[in-house]
Amino acid sequence: MQNILEVVDKKYMTQGATSGSIEFQVFFSDHASNDFNTLFSSLPPSRKYFAAGVPGSFYGRLFPRSLHLVHSSYALQWLSKVPEELLDKTSPAWNKGRISYTSSSDEVANAYAAQFQKDMKIFLNARAKEIVVGGMIVLIMPGLPDGVHRSEFPLGVLDDSLCSSLMDMENAINGVNLKCQSLLHGLINESQVDSFNLPVYAATPMEITEAEISSALESSYNKGTQLIVALKRE
Amino acid sequence: MQNILEVVDKKYMTQGATSGSIEFQVFFSDHASNDFNTLFSSLPPSRKYFAAGVPGSFYGRLFPRSLHLVHSSYALQWLSKVPEELLDKTSPAWNKGRISYTSSSDEVANAYAAQFQKDMKIFLNARAKEIVVGGMIVLIMPGLPDGVHRSEFPLGVLDDSLCSSLMDMENAINGVNLKCQSLLHGLINESQVDSFNLPVYAATPMEITEAEISSALESSYNKGTQLIVALKRE
Repeated sequence: MQNILEVVDKKYMTQGATSGSIEFQVFFSDHASNDFNTLFSSLPPSRKYFAAGVPGSFYGRLFPRSLHLVHSSYALQWLSKVPEELLDKTSPAWNKGRISYTSSSDEVANAYAAQFQKDMKIFLNARAKEIVVGGMIVLIMPGLPDGVHRSEFPLGVLDDSLCSSLMDMENAINGVNLKCQSLLHGLINESQVDSFNLPVYAATPMEITEAEISSALESSYNKGTQLIVALKRE
Repeated sequence: MQNILEVVDKKYMTQGATSGSIEFQVFFSDHASNDFNTLFSSLPPSRKYFAAGVPGSFYGRLFPRSLHLVHSSYALQWLSKVPEELLDKTSPAWNKGRISYTSSSDEVANAYAAQFQKDMKIFLNARAKEIVVGGMIVLIMPGLPDGVHRSEFPLGVLDDSLCSSLMDMENAINGVNLKCQSLLHGLINESQVDSFNLPVYAATPMEITEAEISSALESSYNKGTQLIVALKRE
Protein backbone atom coordinates (compact mmCIF):
# COMPACT_ATOMS: atom_id res chain seq x y z
CA MET A 1 0.00 0.00 0.00
CA GLN A 2 2.75 2.39 1.06
CA ASN A 3 4.60 1.67 -2.23
CA ILE A 4 1.59 2.67 -4.33
CA LEU A 5 1.13 5.90 -2.39
CA GLU A 6 4.80 6.80 -2.71
CA VAL A 7 4.73 6.27 -6.48
CA VAL A 8 1.63 8.45 -6.88
CA ASP A 9 3.11 11.09 -4.58
CA LYS A 10 6.34 11.13 -6.63
CA LYS A 11 4.38 11.45 -9.85
CA TYR A 12 2.58 14.51 -8.48
CA MET A 13 5.91 15.97 -7.34
CA THR A 14 7.23 15.77 -10.91
CA GLN A 15 4.19 17.84 -11.84
CA GLY A 16 5.15 20.54 -9.36
CA ALA A 17 3.22 19.47 -6.24
CA THR A 18 4.90 19.54 -2.82
CA SER A 19 5.55 16.13 -1.25
CA GLY A 20 2.74 15.24 1.12
CA SER A 21 0.37 17.83 -0.34
CA ILE A 22 -1.81 15.11 -1.85
CA GLU A 23 -4.26 13.47 0.57
CA PHE A 24 -4.91 9.75 0.11
CA GLN A 25 -7.93 7.78 1.22
CA VAL A 26 -7.67 3.99 1.11
CA PHE A 27 -10.77 1.79 1.22
CA PHE A 28 -10.36 -1.82 2.32
CA SER A 29 -13.22 -3.93 1.00
CA ASP A 30 -14.28 -7.31 2.34
CA HIS A 31 -17.38 -9.31 3.19
CA ALA A 32 -19.35 -7.79 6.10
CA SER A 33 -18.80 -10.92 8.19
CA ASN A 34 -15.01 -10.73 7.98
CA ASP A 35 -13.05 -9.20 10.84
CA PHE A 36 -12.75 -5.47 10.18
CA ASN A 37 -11.65 -4.75 13.75
CA THR A 38 -8.47 -6.80 13.40
CA LEU A 39 -7.82 -5.05 10.09
CA PHE A 40 -8.34 -1.60 11.60
CA SER A 41 -6.22 -2.26 14.67
CA SER A 42 -3.38 -3.65 12.54
CA LEU A 43 -3.09 -0.55 10.33
CA PRO A 44 0.18 1.29 11.01
CA PRO A 45 -0.51 4.28 13.32
CA SER A 46 1.88 6.44 11.29
CA ARG A 47 0.14 5.71 7.99
CA LYS A 48 0.04 8.50 5.46
CA TYR A 49 -3.50 7.83 4.30
CA PHE A 50 -7.02 7.98 5.67
CA ALA A 51 -8.43 4.47 6.04
CA ALA A 52 -11.95 3.15 5.66
CA GLY A 53 -13.54 -0.29 5.54
CA VAL A 54 -16.20 -1.13 2.98
CA PRO A 55 -18.44 -4.13 3.67
CA GLY A 56 -19.88 -6.21 0.85
CA SER A 57 -19.08 -8.46 -2.10
CA PHE A 58 -17.05 -6.95 -4.94
CA TYR A 59 -19.47 -8.73 -7.27
CA GLY A 60 -21.74 -5.72 -6.88
CA ARG A 61 -21.58 -1.94 -6.42
CA LEU A 62 -19.62 -0.80 -3.38
CA PHE A 63 -18.79 2.86 -4.12
CA PRO A 64 -20.17 5.96 -5.79
CA ARG A 65 -18.13 7.10 -8.80
CA SER A 66 -15.11 8.28 -6.86
CA LEU A 67 -12.25 5.80 -7.21
CA HIS A 68 -8.93 6.72 -8.84
CA LEU A 69 -7.18 3.39 -8.41
CA VAL A 70 -8.74 -0.03 -7.85
CA HIS A 71 -6.47 -2.85 -6.74
CA SER A 72 -7.42 -6.44 -6.06
CA SER A 73 -4.75 -8.94 -5.06
CA TYR A 74 -5.40 -12.69 -4.99
CA ALA A 75 -9.15 -12.39 -4.53
CA LEU A 76 -10.75 -12.69 -7.97
CA GLN A 77 -10.02 -16.40 -8.19
CA TRP A 78 -12.94 -16.73 -5.74
CA LEU A 79 -16.14 -17.07 -7.73
CA SER A 80 -19.35 -15.55 -6.36
CA LYS A 81 -20.71 -19.10 -5.94
CA VAL A 82 -20.34 -22.70 -7.05
CA PRO A 83 -21.85 -23.05 -10.57
CA GLU A 84 -25.45 -24.23 -10.20
CA GLU A 85 -25.03 -27.22 -12.53
CA LEU A 86 -22.68 -28.75 -9.98
CA LEU A 87 -25.48 -28.97 -7.43
CA ASP A 88 -27.72 -31.03 -9.73
CA LYS A 89 -27.21 -34.80 -9.42
CA THR A 90 -28.78 -35.36 -12.83
CA SER A 91 -26.46 -32.89 -14.58
CA PRO A 92 -23.40 -34.06 -16.55
CA ALA A 93 -21.59 -31.41 -14.46
CA TRP A 94 -22.36 -33.25 -11.17
CA ASN A 95 -18.87 -33.37 -9.68
CA LYS A 96 -18.92 -36.75 -7.98
CA GLY A 97 -15.97 -37.44 -5.72
CA ARG A 98 -14.10 -34.20 -6.43
CA ILE A 99 -14.08 -30.72 -4.91
CA SER A 100 -12.82 -28.63 -7.84
CA TYR A 101 -12.80 -28.64 -11.64
CA THR A 102 -9.10 -29.16 -12.24
CA SER A 103 -9.18 -32.96 -12.54
CA SER A 104 -12.84 -33.19 -13.50
CA SER A 105 -14.80 -33.61 -16.73
CA ASP A 106 -15.07 -30.92 -19.40
CA GLU A 107 -18.70 -30.36 -18.36
CA VAL A 108 -17.57 -29.40 -14.86
CA ALA A 109 -14.73 -27.24 -16.20
CA ASN A 110 -17.09 -25.49 -18.64
CA ALA A 111 -19.52 -24.71 -15.82
CA TYR A 112 -16.68 -23.13 -13.82
CA ALA A 113 -15.48 -21.17 -16.88
CA ALA A 114 -19.00 -19.84 -17.53
CA GLN A 115 -19.37 -18.79 -13.87
CA PHE A 116 -16.03 -16.98 -14.06
CA GLN A 117 -17.19 -15.08 -17.16
CA LYS A 118 -20.43 -14.03 -15.44
CA ASP A 119 -18.63 -12.96 -12.26
CA MET A 120 -15.78 -11.13 -13.96
CA LYS A 121 -18.23 -9.22 -16.13
CA ILE A 122 -20.23 -8.21 -13.04
CA PHE A 123 -17.01 -7.16 -11.29
CA LEU A 124 -15.80 -5.06 -14.21
CA ASN A 125 -19.24 -3.51 -14.81
CA ALA A 126 -19.47 -2.49 -11.15
CA ARG A 127 -15.99 -0.96 -11.18
CA ALA A 128 -16.74 0.81 -14.49
CA LYS A 129 -19.45 2.74 -12.62
CA GLU A 130 -17.18 3.54 -9.69
CA ILE A 131 -13.96 4.70 -11.30
CA VAL A 132 -13.33 8.31 -12.29
CA VAL A 133 -12.25 9.46 -15.73
CA GLY A 134 -8.61 8.51 -16.19
CA GLY A 135 -8.66 5.95 -13.36
CA MET A 136 -6.79 2.68 -13.23
CA ILE A 137 -7.65 -0.91 -12.29
CA VAL A 138 -4.83 -3.26 -11.30
CA LEU A 139 -5.75 -6.88 -10.69
CA ILE A 140 -3.49 -9.71 -9.57
CA MET A 141 -4.83 -13.23 -9.45
CA PRO A 142 -3.65 -16.78 -9.93
CA GLY A 143 -4.04 -17.95 -13.51
CA LEU A 144 -2.84 -20.22 -16.28
CA PRO A 145 -1.20 -19.44 -19.65
CA ASP A 146 -3.43 -19.93 -22.69
CA GLY A 147 -3.41 -23.53 -23.86
CA VAL A 148 -2.19 -25.05 -20.59
CA HIS A 149 -4.46 -27.79 -19.25
CA ARG A 150 -6.47 -26.97 -16.14
CA SER A 151 -4.90 -29.85 -14.22
CA GLU A 152 -1.71 -27.75 -14.13
CA PHE A 153 -3.42 -25.23 -11.82
CA PRO A 154 -1.93 -25.70 -8.35
CA LEU A 155 -5.43 -25.88 -6.90
CA GLY A 156 -5.35 -29.37 -8.37
CA VAL A 157 -2.58 -30.13 -5.92
CA LEU A 158 -4.71 -28.78 -3.09
CA ASP A 159 -7.63 -30.85 -4.33
CA ASP A 160 -5.48 -33.96 -4.46
CA SER A 161 -3.96 -33.18 -1.05
CA LEU A 162 -7.38 -32.84 0.52
CA CYS A 163 -8.42 -36.12 -1.04
CA SER A 164 -5.21 -37.74 0.18
CA SER A 165 -5.79 -36.41 3.68
CA LEU A 166 -9.26 -37.86 3.69
CA MET A 167 -7.81 -41.15 2.48
CA ASP A 168 -5.07 -41.16 5.10
CA MET A 169 -7.53 -40.46 7.90
CA GLU A 170 -9.88 -43.12 6.63
CA ASN A 171 -6.99 -45.57 6.34
CA ALA A 172 -5.90 -44.81 9.87
CA ILE A 173 -9.39 -45.65 11.03
CA ASN A 174 -10.15 -48.66 8.88
CA GLY A 175 -6.74 -49.85 7.80
CA VAL A 176 -7.91 -50.18 4.20
CA ASN A 177 -7.17 -48.26 1.00
CA LEU A 178 -10.07 -46.39 -0.49
CA LYS A 179 -10.50 -44.22 -3.54
CA CYS A 180 -10.10 -40.44 -3.31
CA GLN A 181 -13.79 -40.04 -2.54
CA SER A 182 -13.31 -42.09 0.57
CA LEU A 183 -14.86 -40.57 3.61
CA LEU A 184 -13.80 -39.54 7.02
CA HIS A 185 -15.64 -42.20 8.96
CA GLY A 186 -18.63 -40.83 10.85
CA LEU A 187 -17.90 -37.14 10.18
CA ILE A 188 -18.71 -36.67 6.52
CA ASN A 189 -20.52 -38.92 4.12
CA GLU A 190 -20.17 -39.53 0.40
CA SER A 191 -22.98 -37.23 -0.71
CA GLN A 192 -21.46 -34.37 1.31
CA VAL A 193 -18.13 -34.81 -0.52
CA ASP A 194 -19.96 -35.01 -3.85
CA SER A 195 -21.94 -31.81 -3.24
CA PHE A 196 -19.01 -29.77 -1.89
CA ASN A 197 -17.02 -27.79 -4.46
CA LEU A 198 -14.46 -25.04 -4.02
CA PRO A 199 -15.65 -21.89 -5.85
CA VAL A 200 -12.12 -21.13 -7.07
CA TYR A 201 -11.07 -20.65 -10.70
CA ALA A 202 -7.80 -19.88 -12.48
CA ALA A 203 -8.42 -17.86 -15.64
CA THR A 204 -6.29 -17.58 -18.76
CA PRO A 205 -5.37 -14.31 -20.55
CA MET A 206 -7.93 -15.16 -23.26
CA GLU A 207 -10.67 -15.51 -20.67
CA ILE A 208 -9.78 -12.15 -19.11
CA THR A 209 -9.94 -10.50 -22.54
CA GLU A 210 -13.32 -12.11 -23.19
CA ALA A 211 -14.76 -10.79 -19.90
CA GLU A 212 -13.28 -7.38 -20.57
CA ILE A 213 -14.79 -7.15 -24.06
CA SER A 214 -18.24 -8.10 -22.82
CA SER A 215 -18.16 -5.69 -19.87
CA ALA A 216 -19.11 -2.04 -19.62
CA LEU A 217 -15.52 -1.33 -18.70
CA GLU A 218 -14.69 -1.49 -22.39
CA SER A 219 -16.69 1.67 -23.00
CA SER A 220 -14.74 3.27 -20.15
CA TYR A 221 -11.60 3.10 -22.25
CA ASN A 222 -12.96 6.06 -24.15
CA LYS A 223 -12.72 7.89 -20.85
CA GLY A 224 -9.16 6.73 -20.31
CA THR A 225 -9.65 3.97 -17.73
CA GLN A 226 -6.74 1.55 -17.75
CA LEU A 227 -7.08 -2.12 -16.84
CA ILE A 228 -3.95 -4.06 -15.94
CA VAL A 229 -4.32 -7.74 -15.08
CA ALA A 230 -1.42 -9.87 -13.88
CA LEU A 231 -2.15 -13.59 -13.91
CA LYS A 232 0.36 -15.32 -11.68
CA ARG A 233 1.16 -18.97 -12.22
CA GLU A 234 1.78 -20.31 -8.73
CA MET B 1 -29.94 8.32 8.08
CA GLN B 2 -32.66 7.53 5.55
CA ASN B 3 -34.43 10.81 6.46
CA ILE B 4 -31.34 12.88 5.71
CA LEU B 5 -30.82 11.18 2.35
CA GLU B 6 -34.47 11.68 1.38
CA VAL B 7 -34.30 15.39 2.20
CA VAL B 8 -31.13 15.87 0.13
CA ASP B 9 -32.59 13.82 -2.72
CA LYS B 10 -35.77 15.95 -2.68
CA LYS B 11 -33.71 19.13 -2.71
CA TYR B 12 -31.86 17.93 -5.82
CA MET B 13 -35.17 17.01 -7.44
CA THR B 14 -36.40 20.58 -7.01
CA GLN B 15 -33.28 21.59 -8.92
CA GLY B 16 -34.22 19.34 -11.83
CA ALA B 17 -32.41 16.09 -10.95
CA THR B 18 -34.19 12.75 -11.31
CA SER B 19 -34.98 10.94 -8.05
CA GLY B 20 -32.26 8.42 -7.27
CA SER B 21 -29.78 10.02 -9.67
CA ILE B 22 -27.63 11.24 -6.79
CA GLU B 23 -25.31 8.63 -5.27
CA PHE B 24 -24.75 8.80 -1.51
CA GLN B 25 -21.82 7.45 0.45
CA VAL B 26 -22.20 7.29 4.23
CA PHE B 27 -19.17 6.92 6.51
CA PHE B 28 -19.72 5.57 10.01
CA SER B 29 -16.90 6.64 12.29
CA ASP B 30 -15.98 5.02 15.59
CA HIS B 31 -12.96 3.94 17.61
CA ALA B 32 -11.02 1.11 15.93
CA SER B 33 -11.73 -1.19 18.88
CA ASN B 34 -15.50 -0.86 18.61
CA ASP B 35 -17.49 -3.54 16.81
CA PHE B 36 -17.67 -2.60 13.13
CA ASN B 37 -18.84 -6.07 12.11
CA THR B 38 -22.06 -5.78 14.09
CA LEU B 39 -22.58 -2.34 12.59
CA PHE B 40 -21.99 -3.59 9.04
CA SER B 41 -24.21 -6.64 9.41
CA SER B 42 -27.03 -4.53 10.88
CA LEU B 43 -27.17 -2.10 7.94
CA PRO B 44 -30.40 -2.53 5.96
CA PRO B 45 -29.68 -4.63 2.83
CA SER B 46 -31.96 -2.38 0.77
CA ARG B 47 -30.15 0.79 1.80
CA LYS B 48 -29.88 3.52 -0.79
CA TYR B 49 -26.34 4.52 0.05
CA PHE B 50 -22.85 3.06 -0.11
CA ALA B 51 -21.56 2.39 3.40
CA ALA B 52 -18.07 2.57 4.84
CA GLY B 53 -16.59 2.38 8.33
CA VAL B 54 -13.89 4.79 9.44
CA PRO B 55 -11.76 3.81 12.44
CA GLY B 56 -10.30 6.43 14.77
CA SER B 57 -11.09 9.22 17.21
CA PHE B 58 -13.00 12.21 15.86
CA TYR B 59 -10.57 14.33 17.88
CA GLY B 60 -8.22 14.12 14.92
CA ARG B 61 -8.28 13.94 11.12
CA LEU B 62 -10.28 11.06 9.68
CA PHE B 63 -10.98 12.09 6.07
CA PRO B 64 -9.46 13.94 3.14
CA ARG B 65 -11.38 17.07 2.17
CA SER B 66 -14.41 15.32 0.76
CA LEU B 67 -17.34 15.58 3.17
CA HIS B 68 -20.58 17.37 2.28
CA LEU B 69 -22.44 16.74 5.53
CA VAL B 70 -21.00 15.88 8.93
CA HIS B 71 -23.39 14.64 11.60
CA SER B 72 -22.58 13.67 15.16
CA SER B 73 -25.35 12.58 17.49
CA TYR B 74 -24.83 12.22 21.25
CA ALA B 75 -21.09 11.67 21.03
CA LEU B 76 -19.40 15.02 21.63
CA GLN B 77 -20.24 15.00 25.32
CA TRP B 78 -17.40 12.44 25.56
CA LEU B 79 -14.16 14.30 26.15
CA SER B 80 -10.95 12.95 24.63
CA LYS B 81 -9.72 12.23 28.16
CA VAL B 82 -10.17 13.09 31.83
CA PRO B 83 -8.57 16.52 32.48
CA GLU B 84 -5.02 15.97 33.72
CA GLU B 85 -5.46 18.09 36.86
CA LEU B 86 -7.93 15.50 38.14
CA LEU B 87 -5.21 12.86 38.25
CA ASP B 88 -2.96 14.96 40.52
CA LYS B 89 -3.60 14.39 44.23
CA THR B 90 -1.94 17.70 45.09
CA SER B 91 -4.14 19.69 42.69
CA PRO B 92 -7.17 21.66 43.92
CA ALA B 93 -8.97 19.81 41.07
CA TRP B 94 -8.35 16.39 42.69
CA ASN B 95 -11.89 15.02 42.61
CA LYS B 96 -11.98 13.08 45.85
CA GLY B 97 -15.02 10.86 46.29
CA ARG B 98 -16.76 11.86 43.07
CA ILE B 99 -16.74 10.59 39.49
CA SER B 100 -17.83 13.70 37.58
CA TYR B 101 -17.75 17.48 37.86
CA THR B 102 -21.44 18.16 38.32
CA SER B 103 -21.47 18.19 42.12
CA SER B 104 -17.79 19.02 42.55
CA SER B 105 -15.76 22.13 43.26
CA ASP B 106 -15.33 24.99 40.79
CA GLU B 107 -11.72 23.87 40.24
CA VAL B 108 -12.92 20.49 39.00
CA ALA B 109 -15.64 22.07 36.86
CA ASN B 110 -13.17 24.55 35.36
CA ALA B 111 -10.78 21.72 34.45
CA TYR B 112 -13.63 19.92 32.65
CA ALA B 113 -14.68 23.14 30.89
CA ALA B 114 -11.10 23.78 29.70
CA GLN B 115 -10.82 20.21 28.40
CA PHE B 116 -14.09 20.63 26.52
CA GLN B 117 -12.78 23.81 24.88
CA LYS B 118 -9.56 22.07 23.80
CA ASP B 119 -11.41 19.04 22.45
CA MET B 120 -14.15 20.96 20.67
CA LYS B 121 -11.58 23.19 19.00
CA ILE B 122 -9.64 20.10 17.81
CA PHE B 123 -12.87 18.53 16.55
CA LEU B 124 -13.94 21.65 14.64
CA ASN B 125 -10.44 22.25 13.23
CA ALA B 126 -10.27 18.66 11.94
CA ARG B 127 -13.70 18.91 10.31
CA ALA B 128 -12.80 22.32 8.83
CA LYS B 129 -10.09 20.52 6.84
CA GLU B 130 -12.41 17.73 5.75
CA ILE B 131 -15.54 19.51 4.63
CA VAL B 132 -16.05 20.78 1.09
CA VAL B 133 -16.98 24.34 0.16
CA GLY B 134 -20.64 24.84 1.04
CA GLY B 135 -20.75 21.83 3.38
CA MET B 136 -22.72 21.51 6.59
CA ILE B 137 -21.99 20.27 10.12
CA VAL B 138 -24.91 19.22 12.30
CA LEU B 139 -24.13 18.30 15.89
CA ILE B 140 -26.51 17.06 18.56
CA MET B 141 -25.27 16.65 22.10
CA PRO B 142 -26.56 16.91 25.64
CA GLY B 143 -26.11 20.38 27.07
CA LEU B 144 -27.30 23.01 29.51
CA PRO B 145 -28.82 26.47 28.94
CA ASP B 146 -26.51 29.40 29.70
CA GLY B 147 -26.62 30.32 33.38
CA VAL B 148 -27.97 27.00 34.64
CA HIS B 149 -25.83 25.40 37.33
CA ARG B 150 -23.88 22.29 36.35
CA SER B 151 -25.59 20.22 39.03
CA GLU B 152 -28.72 20.38 36.84
CA PHE B 153 -27.00 18.20 34.21
CA PRO B 154 -28.61 14.76 34.39
CA LEU B 155 -25.16 13.19 34.56
CA GLY B 156 -25.28 14.45 38.13
CA VAL B 157 -28.16 12.06 38.69
CA LEU B 158 -26.08 9.24 37.23
CA ASP B 159 -23.18 10.26 39.43
CA ASP B 160 -25.41 10.32 42.51
CA SER B 161 -27.00 7.00 41.53
CA LEU B 162 -23.64 5.32 41.19
CA CYS B 163 -22.61 6.68 44.56
CA SER B 164 -25.90 5.51 46.06
CA SER B 165 -25.41 2.06 44.57
CA LEU B 166 -21.97 1.85 46.08
CA MET B 167 -23.43 2.96 49.40
CA ASP B 168 -26.26 0.44 49.26
CA MET B 169 -23.89 -2.41 48.47
CA GLU B 170 -21.54 -1.35 51.22
CA ASN B 171 -24.45 -1.07 53.65
CA ALA B 172 -25.65 -4.51 52.70
CA ILE B 173 -22.22 -5.84 53.52
CA ASN B 174 -21.43 -3.88 56.65
CA GLY B 175 -24.82 -2.79 57.86
CA VAL B 176 -23.58 0.75 58.42
CA ASN B 177 -24.17 4.05 56.65
CA LEU B 178 -21.18 5.52 54.92
CA LYS B 179 -20.57 8.64 52.89
CA CYS B 180 -20.92 8.60 49.10
CA GLN B 181 -17.28 7.73 48.71
CA SER B 182 -17.90 4.51 50.56
CA LEU B 183 -16.46 1.53 48.83
CA LEU B 184 -17.63 -1.77 47.58
CA HIS B 185 -15.92 -3.95 50.14
CA GLY B 186 -12.98 -5.88 48.68
CA LEU B 187 -13.64 -4.99 45.03
CA ILE B 188 -12.66 -1.35 44.78
CA ASN B 189 -10.80 0.83 47.21
CA GLU B 190 -11.03 4.50 48.07
CA SER B 191 -8.15 5.64 45.89
CA GLN B 192 -9.68 3.90 42.87
CA VAL B 193 -12.94 5.81 43.36
CA ASP B 194 -11.01 9.04 43.86
CA SER B 195 -8.96 8.59 40.67
CA PHE B 196 -11.87 7.47 38.46
CA ASN B 197 -13.72 10.24 36.62
CA LEU B 198 -16.20 10.09 33.76
CA PRO B 199 -14.87 12.10 30.79
CA VAL B 200 -18.33 13.49 30.03
CA TYR B 201 -19.25 17.16 29.78
CA ALA B 202 -22.44 19.09 29.04
CA ALA B 203 -21.68 22.36 27.27
CA THR B 204 -23.70 25.56 27.15
CA PRO B 205 -24.46 27.61 24.01
CA MET B 206 -21.85 30.17 25.13
CA GLU B 207 -19.20 27.47 25.37
CA ILE B 208 -20.03 26.20 21.87
CA THR B 209 -19.72 29.73 20.49
CA GLU B 210 -16.37 30.16 22.25
CA ALA B 211 -14.98 26.94 20.72
CA GLU B 212 -16.33 27.90 17.33
CA ILE B 213 -14.73 31.34 17.41
CA SER B 214 -11.33 29.93 18.37
CA SER B 215 -11.42 27.18 15.75
CA ALA B 216 -10.37 27.16 12.12
CA LEU B 217 -13.97 26.43 11.25
CA GLU B 218 -14.69 30.11 11.67
CA SER B 219 -12.59 30.88 8.61
CA SER B 220 -14.57 28.23 6.75
CA TYR B 221 -17.66 30.41 7.00
CA ASN B 222 -16.15 32.48 4.22
CA LYS B 223 -16.42 29.34 2.14
CA GLY B 224 -20.02 28.82 3.15
CA THR B 225 -19.69 26.01 5.71
CA GLN B 226 -22.67 25.94 8.03
CA LEU B 227 -22.46 24.76 11.64
CA ILE B 228 -25.68 23.80 13.41
CA VAL B 229 -25.44 22.68 17.04
CA ALA B 230 -28.44 21.41 18.98
CA LEU B 231 -27.83 21.15 22.71
CA LYS B 232 -30.46 18.88 24.19
CA ARG B 233 -31.37 19.18 27.85
CA GLU B 234 -32.14 15.63 28.91
